[in-house]
Amino acid sequence: MFDSLKIKEDFPILKQTVNDEPLIYLDNAATTQKPKQVLQAVQDYYFHDNANVHRGVHTLAERATRSYEESRETVRAFINASSTKEVLFTRGTTTALNWVAKGFGDLVVEEGDEIYITPMEHHSNIVPWQQLAFRKRATLKYLPLTEDAVVDMEKAKEIISEKGKILALCHASNVMGSIHSIPRLAELIHQVGGYIVVDGAQSVPHTKVDVQALNADFFAFSGHKMCGPTGIGVLYGKQALLERMEPVEYGGEMIDFVYDETSTWTELPWKFEAGTPNIAGAIGLKAAIEYLQAIGMDEIERHEQKLMAHLMPQLSDIEGLSIYGPTDHTKRTGIVTFNLDGVHPHDLATAFDMEGIAIRAGHHCAQPLMRYLDTPATARASFYFYNSKEDVDQFVVSLKKIKEFFNNGFI
Amino acid sequence: MFDSLKIKEDFPILKQTVNDEPLIYLDNAATTQKPKQVLQAVQDYYFHDNANVHRGVHTLAERATRSYEESRETVRAFINASSTKEVLFTRGTTTALNWVAKGFGDLVVEEGDEIYITPMEHHSNIVPWQQLAFRKRATLKYLPLTEDAVVDMEKAKEIISEKGKILALCHASNVMGSIHSIPRLAELIHQVGGYIVVDGAQSVPHTKVDVQALNADFFAFSGHKMCGPTGIGVLYGKQALLERMEPVEYGGEMIDFVYDETSTWTELPWKFEAGTPNIAGAIGLKAAIEYLQAIGMDEIERHEQKLMAHLMPQLSDIEGLSIYGPTDHTKRTGIVTFNLDGVHPHDLATAFDMEGIAIRAGHHCAQPLMRYLDTPATARASFYFYNSKEDVDQFVVSLKKIKEFFNNGFI
Repeated sequence: MFDSLKIKEDFPILKQTVNDEPLIYLDNAATTQKPKQVLQAVQDYYFHDNANVHRGVHTLAERATRSYEESRETVRAFINASSTKEVLFTRGTTTALNWVAKGFGDLVVEEGDEIYITPMEHHSNIVPWQQLAFRKRATLKYLPLTEDAVVDMEKAKEIISEKGKILALCHASNVMGSIHSIPRLAELIHQVGGYIVVDGAQSVPHTKVDVQALNADFFAFSGHKMCGPTGIGVLYGKQALLERMEPVEYGGEMIDFVYDETSTWTELPWKFEAGTPNIAGAIGLKAAIEYLQAIGMDEIERHEQKLMAHLMPQLSDIEGLSIYGPTDHTKRTGIVTFNLDGVHPHDLATAFDMEGIAIRAGHHCAQPLMRYLDTPATARASFYFYNSKEDVDQFVVSLKKIKEFFNNGFI
Repeated sequence: MFDSLKIKEDFPILKQTVNDEPLIYLDNAATTQKPKQVLQAVQDYYFHDNANVHRGVHTLAERATRSYEESRETVRAFINASSTKEVLFTRGTTTALNWVAKGFGDLVVEEGDEIYITPMEHHSNIVPWQQLAFRKRATLKYLPLTEDAVVDMEKAKEIISEKGKILALCHASNVMGSIHSIPRLAELIHQVGGYIVVDGAQSVPHTKVDVQALNADFFAFSGHKMCGPTGIGVLYGKQALLERMEPVEYGGEMIDFVYDETSTWTELPWKFEAGTPNIAGAIGLKAAIEYLQAIGMDEIERHEQKLMAHLMPQLSDIEGLSIYGPTDHTKRTGIVTFNLDGVHPHDLATAFDMEGIAIRAGHHCAQPLMRYLDTPATARASFYFYNSKEDVDQFVVSLKKIKEFFNNGFI
């Protein structure tokens, strides 16, 4: 059930003023705010059950282990993985993608093989593949995009060859707001015997994700972009692939036997989780998922679409404003990336901040995309379910005011 | 100032009963409890300042970045590093040690070289070096211990050769409670042109650590073992070495330029911190350090020594009880590892749990040490500053009671 008033009550941070204006937080693609329920769950854990997991027989250790593993089950059900063996807790999306590139990429990619990404990947889904290609003397290829900022399927079919081992791309873009049809892309790469690795950081918080329906081989996302704590994320992988994949970190908990010179690994999912995990982070993520589910992922998606339907037509009127990504708001998430003629995006962001509105400016960790768009930087407003129609209106009012200010100043 | 009553008030978790007995938490070597102040700092961050760091110009992003970098400065001062460039935030000690083994070990270790560890390392300080030795066809050697469970310096001098590149060992043992003289060991390995990597997980929480005085090349520790949150730890490294060391994770924030096929890295310390860091974890760690400093690290050490002085003589009376590690309590931290004749340590831990006392049993992530001690497992009670003389007395009473119970049952 979507109850905007109750939702606002759950987020104490949103009640403040910034530069004497009520805060409107539109930087949700960078990180989201946390409801009281998430903090409460973390505090309850620390004040009642805190202990190290898996290795203890005492009561607190058993409770902590149960809570931690229940969090894994909550994540499993949330993304519809077949088994908790397929759900690895990581520090975040970046760590997850690095693990796949190293632990699985190194296994399957050989000299002369091809790795495909797109020009709109986040650096965390570019640099690990550059490094893999470098280690293995493989070739990194960029699949061209359509005008709607998704992979051009016809061109992709021409490019993807029998040498293709990995296709790594975002489910939803952190800049363009566009959404990939993962099942079709999975089919493409599976046909040549390759694997698809999906960066779900910008999709999981905003829409119902079913990793089996997507047919993703690997799927990564972060807790902090979906109302959860910082320092916790998830790597999903198909069990058969995770069985083959090598751990990237070594230490306690992931071993079976440690001999003097060699060691053997324990079973999934713990094979990958060396050392004390972010237990409280996992518990906070569980609370975040439960919070989102109580509202309903469909409701969240619908609300964000409503905001976009309200926003986009208002923006099309503004002269000198360029919007990147699909023009059809049904083809995009709640991310609006833009530039205003003659105004540097950093100045835009600073001006918005003076209005109490938090937006982001820069390359958004996507320098190749900036080159592709032929701009050094952009401004980006990204909405979430706790943003309201009034936030949209205030954003437009401020944008027009800022445009006027800069025009008067510079023309 | 050491005020036991106030300290107990700060830890709500310690006020509960377990199996109808007041909880006595003696599993501090696994993880420690968190004072209210740490949770308050984390909550304050989430409810006032939460944003992603480094990349934003808006007010919250500036506040979050300032808080995160202030945490780094707090850590720097706490361990007396020369510069915040030398302080990297990691997920914990395990990640930190893995980064050194991969990012620095791969640079300096060549075929035929030697890597030294001790038989009492935690798995997180064994397996990464086994894997490095395997990758590089180097040799992993174990330095023998004295009766007091520290490296035998004479034997070490015989073993350490010109081929020695890395000496990796714990500052304080997680099983034996013994403490290494790091400066002397640093000198040994520096003489042959090698580097010393110190696992400080069991020392930093309990004693004043000065990385410059220790002359450690790398030094790792975890927040959760020192009243901080899970999911945050620190890798200290000498700046000149970190400049040479390669990043192990790739992604946003750690790059300078991302070209289509290659990338360049940004400067220290961010070169190593790919992706969104555990911002709230770093802020919680800062609060934990401030909490410990308000009591005083010297006071904490003194208090734990008093507890040991009170405990150890009482244990020496108990027939059939074996204590591992130094017999002189001034040579050890607040860790007491033991076995009781004829009773499996897991049964011991379960029996203690029935008394409301949380201790640990097993191999303590130190299988090579268990072989060295010729025992499959041990029980371990580990004390912290919030434990009292009364906790010690209750532990002894319970131990005697449990011994009697098992004797009656089995003899």
